[in-house]
Formats: sequence, C-alpha cells, structure tokens
Amino acid sequence: MLIFPRILGHEAGGVVESVGEGVNDLRPGDHVLPVFTGECKECAHCMSEESNMCDLLRINTDRVVMLHDQKSRLSINGKPIFHFVRTSTFSEYTVVHFGCLAKINPLAPLDKVCVLSCGISTGLGATLNVAKPKKGSSVAVFGLGAVGLAAAESARIAGASRIFSVDLNANRFELEFVNPKDYKKPVQEAIAEMTNGGVDRSVECTDHVDAMISAFECWGVAVLVGVPHKDVVFKTSPMNVLNERTLKGTFFENYKPRSHIPSVVEKYMNKELEVEKFITHEVPFSEINKAFDLMLKGEGLRCIIRMDA
Amino acid sequence: MLIFPRILGHEAGGVVESVGEGVNDLRPGDHVLPVFTGECKECAHCMSEESNMCDLLRINTDRVVMLHDQKSRLSINGKPIFHFVRTSTFSEYTVVHFGCLAKINPLAPLDKVCVLSCGISTGLGATLNVAKPKKGSSVAVFGLGAVGLAAAESARIAGASRIFSVDLNANRFELEFVNPKDYKKPVQEAIAEMTNGGVDRSVECTDHVDAMISAFECWGVAVLVGVPHKDVVFKTSPMNVLNERTLKGTFFENYKPRSHIPSVVEKYMNKELEVEKFITHEVPFSEINKAFDLMLKGEGLRCIIRMDA
Repeated sequence: MLIFPRILGHEAGGVVESVGEGVNDLRPGDHVLPVFTGECKECAHCMSEESNMCDLLRINTDRVVMLHDQKSRLSINGKPIFHFVRTSTFSEYTVVHFGCLAKINPLAPLDKVCVLSCGISTGLGATLNVAKPKKGSSVAVFGLGAVGLAAAESARIAGASRIFSVDLNANRFELEFVNPKDYKKPVQEAIAEMTNGGVDRSVECTDHVDAMISAFECWGVAVLVGVPHKDVVFKTSPMNVLNERTLKGTFFENYKPRSHIPSVVEKYMNKELEVEKFITHEVPFSEINKAFDLMLKGEGLRCIIRMDA
Repeated sequence: MLIFPRILGHEAGGVVESVGEGVNDLRPGDHVLPVFTGECKECAHCMSEESNMCDLLRINTDRVVMLHDQKSRLSINGKPIFHFVRTSTFSEYTVVHFGCLAKINPLAPLDKVCVLSCGISTGLGATLNVAKPKKGSSVAVFGLGAVGLAAAESARIAGASRIFSVDLNANRFELEFVNPKDYKKPVQEAIAEMTNGGVDRSVECTDHVDAMISAFECWGVAVLVGVPHKDVVFKTSPMNVLNERTLKGTFFENYKPRSHIPSVVEKYMNKELEVEKFITHEVPFSEINKAFDLMLKGEGLRCIIRMDA
C-alpha cells in the first residue's frame, strides 16, 4: 500500500545532529551514510556470516513510521509526513534508526562517498562479493545504469579479461557491447557463441525478468541484482540448472550496513575505488526536480545526482 | 531418439582386460570405475577448476557408438548392440573410452566401491562439494533414494545440526522427516516455520520440478541434483532470488571422473565414508531382472544392487 505524503530518497551522506535515548554507538558530529536496510547486530541474520537480512531492520517498503513508537518524526506545518525505507534523504534533516547508519571515516568527502550508501556499493558488491570472477575470466553485465557500470568497473578491478555490457540502449554502450535487439536468437545464445560456450559470470542490474533469465542462461554464475516486479515469474528449464549453472540472489550484495559499508568508504580513501566517474551532475537541493528531469531524459542514467542543501 | 538394442547400465567396478592403441594411462589389470561422463584432460572445461563438463566426453545420451570410429564394440551373434552413456555396464565385459575410467586403488573391494561410480558419489558431492553446509547448519534433503540418503549422510559428516528429509513415501523417512502431503501449504513454508525462516542448505535429489522449486524456496543455498524432464519449466518469483537465495546446478557434483573419483574411493579406504549401508541387496548377474523387480517394488530404492558375473 502506498501511503503519502512521504519524504522519498535513500542515498545520502550526512552528519549526526543529535541522538536519541539509548543510542551509544553514535554521537553528534559523526559522519554517516544512511542505508535503506539495517543491522541490529543481535538477530540470527546479523550473527550469521551468510546473511545481512536483519530480522529487525530489513528493508520494509510498507513501513512509514519509526520502529520505536510507530510514529513519524517528519512533519510540515504540524502535519505528519511519512518515512521512506527508513531513510527519507530528500531532505536537509531526517530521522533514522541508528541501525541503518554506517559510521564512516570523517575525512571522507560526503559529497563523493554518498554514492556508496546504495548504488555504487551494490554494483561493486554484486561483482566482488557475490559473482567473484577470477582473474582472466569473462563477465557479462546486464543493464548499464549506475549499478551496472559499477559492476562492470568492479569486473575490471577483479581482472576480468572480457567484460560484456548488455543493454537495449545503444548510447549507453561501453566495453564489449551486445544489444539484444541486434539478434533474432536469445542474447544468451549470442554471447555463448562469442565466448565458446558462455561467460564465467553474469551480473544482472535491470529489473526485467527477461534479462534475469538471459543472465542466468549465460552459463557460469549469475548474480541477480535488479528488483523485479513482485508478480513476474522467473522461468527456465531445469536442464539449465543441471548444467552447472548457479543463480545467486543477493540483498544489498551481502553488505551489512554498519559492519561493512565503512570499509567500502575506506576503499575509496585508499584509492582502490574511484567514485568521481559515477558523478556526472551536481544539482543543488532546491533544484531537485531538475535532477529528476535529467534522469527521465536518460542523461542521468549513468550518474548519481548529488544534492546539496 | 531412443536406439535399440542397447546394453544399459552405468554404475560398476571392473578390471581392465586390454587397452587399445594410444591408451597410455591404463594397462591390463588396473582396477577402474566406469563413469557416464568423461574427462579428456585437454579441453577448456577439463582445464577449468570450475567445470567438469568435458567438451569431448561429456554425457551424451544420444551417443550409442564409440567416439573413435562411430562404431559399436558390442554385438550378439554378429549383430551390433549399441552403447549406453559410454559405459554399458549390465554386461560381464564392456568397451569404454579411457577418458571415462577412473583408475582406483587396487586394494579397494570392487563389490563395494562400485557404488561410487555414480549414485553415492553424487549424493556425497552434492552436499560436500556444492552445498557445503557449515558445521551446525540445517540441511533439507528432498528425495530419499540412494542419492538423497548419501546427501543426508554427507550432511551428517559435515556436522549439520538438523537434517530434514522430505519425501512423499512415508516408509522412506529417517532423520527429521517432512511429508509434503501432510501440509496444505507448500512444504518450503512448513520447513521455514520449523527453522525460524528456512534451512541453510537444501539438496534436491528427485527429478520432480515441484521439489526443485520447493528446495530453492527453502532459503539459503539449494543444490539441484535430480535430472528433470527436458520439457518441464522451473518457475519462481524473482523476489525469491533477490532475498539472498542461491540455486546451484551441478553436473556429477563437479567431480572430474579421472581426477577426483579415485580420491572418493580413498575416502572409503580411510573409513571417512561408509558404503556398505547403501548396499541392501546383492544379486547375481544372471538374476538381474530380480534386481529390477526389487526396485520397482520399492525395496531397492534405498539400495544399490550389486551384480556379480
């Protein structure tokens, strides 16, 4: 159910202004990245090495109020405005559960590392944490938005010898590009022919189920990153599974927000990871609608748009 | 296309009687296990750590003659009988490509380790090589035939704390058993309730697509072992994938026949693995039809039936 009015937005970098009762890990002045999913550090998932799907703070798009008292902390002229995925970052100030805040290096420039609070970390983690291509292997990335570009860049970091980008939008092509529209056969078969059987890894960064199926049928290990519509159905022949294919689902690429995201910021600080290349526009907060217009025109599809107060 | 007459059978243990020209790795007297898929040791798959799907000798159920000259080596009264998955072991003598023979420890009793030429190795490898449950984790095995029992036994070897067996046939139940017929809801939901969210690993050893889907939706890592009918379709919601589920297909559980199967035999020799428990009947070759009758009656479903010449 969609409840409005809400303050949208989930990627950001910020500074803690004040903390509520019982919050001991953070203090005013700390630099943080808010994350759409949280880490309580106490549940079975948080205690597991294999899951980041915190029982308490896992993403919940239906939740529009704070966990503590089921009330909103946001208002305009005395009327409540609801929260969005526990972050509501299209705002100069927001109120966030401390379990959804990654405390980061205070020397990291917030106007750069903000992009690590979701999209770029997602692409990075999809390749490095989940697909784990070996040096010299081949990787296909489906969907060249910011996440897909970060996934492809991470394949380069991992030493992939061939990186295919698969996208319907010709003007987004980089690397070895494959446009499914150019083939009568399924794109996975075209890629198989180009690679003597298929790529070692594929990373799916669209939200289209057809791309998910193609990525899976590309051979090797397929990582699905895109968030599909809840009603679509993933269909494949079980023979494809039998033939040593692996399909890996991930949720924020196994990153635990508080435990892992600070180290992703350190990758940037150590120059192992560049984020500037993903920032093509900088738009002041007062012109936020201009940012949406850029995205709708496709100009922002390869960028993270940074908004300053 | 089904071509007859053929000599069926693919599990066995034997002694090399003679070798053809160019065969240098084997000599008469060597003890071997024939395997339904081969290893040329030269193709890209054989050279890869991640694949055992040999380009030259991968299983091919349509192949009924030798690779070398496209002729059968089997005959009766001068008329050819065709081969079956390169092994044709329902016979006192057979002719097998050397790439499909695992040379094993000559001290290993052939009437025991023959069961490692396919079924028991499959169950063992599905759990230990592919699912890789951690100590203390939970494992669900779907389908308690010989392969499934070996998968469950391997979960015990790996230190799983809970092992669920899922089967429609009540008299096959061991371990913590779950009969899908006992629930109105999908069995994966029943298991999720018993395990606070789902098992860490599931191993699917039937050939039913519904069991495959249930195993996948059980949470964690699902390994599909069963060989499905080629026309069935695996359907799931991509949301299930997004929620950190992994689906792993395997082909002979990543075992390369010549490189790896000898070491599985060594596991038996070192008493790390018991095979006797999987052998419930021993039937002389002359009574092979009695073995089929036992299987059809369900008595042999937990056993490997050994046939002596």
